[in-house]
Amino acid sequence: VSIAVLAGGVGAAKFLAGLVQVVEPGEITAIVNVGDDFELHGLRISPDLDTVTYTLAGEVNPETGWGLRGETWQAMDVVGRYGGADWFRLGDRDLGTHLFRTGRLADGDPLSAVTREIVAAWGIGIRVLPATDDPLRTMVTLAGDGPDDGAEVDFQSYFVRRQHAVPVSAVRFAGAEAATPGPGVLDAIATADTVICAPSNPIVSIAPVLAVPGIREAVTARRDRTVAVSPIVAGSALKGPADRMLVELGHEASVVGVARLYFDWCSTLVVDEADAERAADVEAEGMRCVVAPTIMRDPASSAAVARAVLDSIA
Amino acid sequence: VSIAVLAGGVGAAKFLAGLVQVVEPGEITAIVNVGDDFELHGLRISPDLDTVTYTLAGEVNPETGWGLRGETWQAMDVVGRYGGADWFRLGDRDLGTHLFRTGRLADGDPLSAVTREIVAAWGIGIRVLPATDDPLRTMVTLAGDGPDDGAEVDFQSYFVRRQHAVPVSAVRFAGAEAATPGPGVLDAIATADTVICAPSNPIVSIAPVLAVPGIREAVTARRDRTVAVSPIVAGSALKGPADRMLVELGHEASVVGVARLYFDWCSTLVVDEADAERAADVEAEGMRCVVAPTIMRDPASSAAVARAVLDSIA
Repeated sequence: VSIAVLAGGVGAAKFLAGLVQVVEPGEITAIVNVGDDFELHGLRISPDLDTVTYTLAGEVNPETGWGLRGETWQAMDVVGRYGGADWFRLGDRDLGTHLFRTGRLADGDPLSAVTREIVAAWGIGIRVLPATDDPLRTMVTLAGDGPDDGAEVDFQSYFVRRQHAVPVSAVRFAGAEAATPGPGVLDAIATADTVICAPSNPIVSIAPVLAVPGIREAVTARRDRTVAVSPIVAGSALKGPADRMLVELGHEASVVGVARLYFDWCSTLVVDEADAERAADVEAEGMRCVVAPTIMRDPASSAAVARAVLDSIA
Repeated sequence: VSIAVLAGGVGAAKFLAGLVQVVEPGEITAIVNVGDDFELHGLRISPDLDTVTYTLAGEVNPETGWGLRGETWQAMDVVGRYGGADWFRLGDRDLGTHLFRTGRLADGDPLSAVTREIVAAWGIGIRVLPATDDPLRTMVTLAGDGPDDGAEVDFQSYFVRRQHAVPVSAVRFAGAEAATPGPGVLDAIATADTVICAPSNPIVSIAPVLAVPGIREAVTARRDRTVAVSPIVAGSALKGPADRMLVELGHEASVVGVARLYFDWCSTLVVDEADAERAADVEAEGMRCVVAPTIMRDPASSAAVARAVLDSIA
């Protein structure tokens, strides 16, 4: 069985860490959001690619779910001494990844090639593909009543710098129209036995992947074999601002709201047992609904979720 | 008394650390070589500016004479894991400086402004000016009989990557013709009571400073008040490849060879006691020669050298 997984950051990484326990890693291709990518201090930072990679390497910082284990902060301390931007905390080990990636990109190599080398160096068995090698940036319009009201900022300026504490009135994916799917992306979707949409933020993790022309169409063509795991459980995001963002952008923060966003390209939605009572409402939106435990607390529960997702569409 | 110092890296930094003990730091302006600057992993690295700054801050790594005290190497370890370029060892603390500088330059600020902020953050009392804000790169033609024969490489590819173990057939300063002196540089030279040429490599530390159009002329106009400390003692460079470079490029590796390079813009050469017997030969080249101890082993001997240099032209 070959499996393609549409992936964001922490939630997708945990899911993939479960999936590699139940499927041969060589059969898995993660197609990862790059809308969160940005430049800081001249370095190219790809948070979702790194979170997936570090997690599968068993090197992710267990306290945060991102960054590396055994991290130190010497570089950031010196940046702080200069009054430089230190709101995005780049650990010393993590910096090694950004240095390598930035240098290789400056040499003219595409992100997909550099990612392949980084992934290989950590000994990860799955394929990790950026959704696109082209510039694609998630831009967020802030709707607070502060001085930022109406300003459009890049994703990290919303997510990390403002700790996603400001309401949002719009999200767009700059560069998406001109972007093309990364090497192997369309083929992985077309040839997969199953396409899985990981439990990632629908608005800022999954939507930017689908915004690359060709990817949504490829997934839609596999709709019968595509299954999503709801990132919303009992009306709340397990992590991050997905629930508030959904409401702020006019959606429902529930498995039904997710179904309305996913039904046209995805046939099956796996919802948590806590949402069992909404299964009929999901099905009314045109998706098969499968109820299963979806909370990933540790490797064993992640593997159980992965198994349930595969069973849901077997 | 106001003093302008033409400066390279380690030797100049030690000299400046002596000078601040005998002159008010606020009276001192260091005009620093940027020909060694380069880009690696997307970061802008300014080795001589940093060596001067770290040394005056008392934060230089005492074992190497460059880099920071208490350094760790976590980022480089990860770069090495990826097979990335790790021949130029960037310590984690040191990386903080490169991150801040690179980010500020990317914002459009000139190197001189960024340097001012870095210097201020370390609480250094002297002014530190890049010789120019414009791109100026010392390029070295290799003359080995290996596969590199005849290749022109940037300075760090010679100095660090090849550990300056390859003979050299030419040195040029790319970008020099189009460069203009950094803000304050010409004024510091014109208004200084004394201009000091620090004991730095004549070929790759001092020459690139003088190669910026206007600087050599400004120093020449102050020739009577300009004094140099020979970086060659008893025919050898105290540090680095200056002695070999001089010979490879057709000069004499001696205080006389230094005098032949400096006499047209500098009136006085301070030579070490070990070279007392060559004083008459130096004077035959058209420079006053003053014999004094010039070896800088510690803060006290650095201060003594600084005092002797000031006395030589009092």
